[in-house]
Amino acid sequence: MRSSISEERNAEVGSGLMRADAFGPEARKAVYDAIHTRRDVRDQFQPDPLPDDVIRRLLEAAHAAPSVGFMQPWSFILLRSEETKRAAWEAFSKANAEAEAMFADGKRDLYRSLKLEGIRKAPLSIVVTCDPDRAGPVVLGRTHNPRMDVYSTVCAVQNLWLAARAEGVGVGWVSIFRDEDVRSLLGIPERIEIVAWLCIGYVRELYQEPELAVKGWRQRLNLEQLICEERWQDMP
Amino acid sequence: MRSSISEERNAEVGSGLMRADAFGPEARKAVYDAIHTRRDVRDQFQPDPLPDDVIRRLLEAAHAAPSVGFMQPWSFILLRSEETKRAAWEAFSKANAEAEAMFADGKRDLYRSLKLEGIRKAPLSIVVTCDPDRAGPVVLGRTHNPRMDVYSTVCAVQNLWLAARAEGVGVGWVSIFRDEDVRSLLGIPERIEIVAWLCIGYVRELYQEPELAVKGWRQRLNLEQLICEERWQDMP
Repeated sequence: MRSSISEERNAEVGSGLMRADAFGPEARKAVYDAIHTRRDVRDQFQPDPLPDDVIRRLLEAAHAAPSVGFMQPWSFILLRSEETKRAAWEAFSKANAEAEAMFADGKRDLYRSLKLEGIRKAPLSIVVTCDPDRAGPVVLGRTHNPRMDVYSTVCAVQNLWLAARAEGVGVGWVSIFRDEDVRSLLGIPERIEIVAWLCIGYVRELYQEPELAVKGWRQRLNLEQLICEERWQDMP
Repeated sequence: MRSSISEERNAEVGSGLMRADAFGPEARKAVYDAIHTRRDVRDQFQPDPLPDDVIRRLLEAAHAAPSVGFMQPWSFILLRSEETKRAAWEAFSKANAEAEAMFADGKRDLYRSLKLEGIRKAPLSIVVTCDPDRAGPVVLGRTHNPRMDVYSTVCAVQNLWLAARAEGVGVGWVSIFRDEDVRSLLGIPERIEIVAWLCIGYVRELYQEPELAVKGWRQRLNLEQLICEERWQDMP
């Protein structure tokens, strides 16, 4: 009997596989709730600092993302200093003025009225980067698509974002920056790709729909029109 | 009294905000379970077809991803035909032979021993694409980083992947393809970016750790070494 249990355990360890059933109804609902109520937060941040164990769980969630060739190309720069936040906000403001000028007259007023970042309001920012050299020059799975390492890093961002929703923490992804401004502010070498500037803090409220829909910028598309079968079909 | 309730409701609708508390312990655990037990599946697929309502929930999860300027640039091509799968597998095999030759002698045998796709075994494939023109030439949030639309599409893939875990469905992302082979197979125009080929099917077992770690290709990095504070620091 002892020998058979031991063999069973060995077989389990040997294969490295475990049972992987569907989640029960409540657990499945929780996953969908995180997915469907997650928002890009700009203004709802509370000032309370995030406890270390919460930050740790968010980063562990990011670190559990899929990565091409298991290269785990991501790094995380945690920013709390007021001085850094002010400098980042200035870089954003400059880029945002450039962006505003790109929109046609009709949309420019609406663009100007939107709050597009929470850099100064969020108690924490996390800059997520991608190191293309993390696993040497030839990476399993990246041989035919050189961008797979950045895609892995984006998966890490989305994991963090969903974990944050479950923790009552809001996340806003700021992309209106000149790359060189953030690079020089944080001393990031040229070979490292800056993927995301995330503003992070507790929230009490979130928009029921994406803020850009609520504010009339752009509405949700009909999913039916984005699906086709067996071959490409032109879509809206 | 009636007037005050009506005002409250109006205020709620007007602001578009809703309460967004942290999830309870069980629901939070469910989200983390999805994140930490999700795997890149190549060989554990069961042949059973996925019911339409499950596929629909997975695509709704993808469609709930964050997107720059709410552009929702993704489309989904659902593939079930044996003929298409066989042609895709041939494109993979050709690219995989090219990839194998890129690895140093020491790693080539191990590379050859790995199963790197489940194209023929999975009952369903979903090809996820990105349309950079979905919301016109100037997109809010993409003005300073032209890749934000593809990043949005990758977030949609990760949402689908986590939802699938909760449904007992496995997903494998195949990236070893020549872009032009998939493009010509599915009739995808040049202006559309092919982001992911996902193999999808029910699973009964998953690896406890990423398969590439189990098989000795590459081990998990220490998260501590990927985190720095306030400024970039060189990491492994």
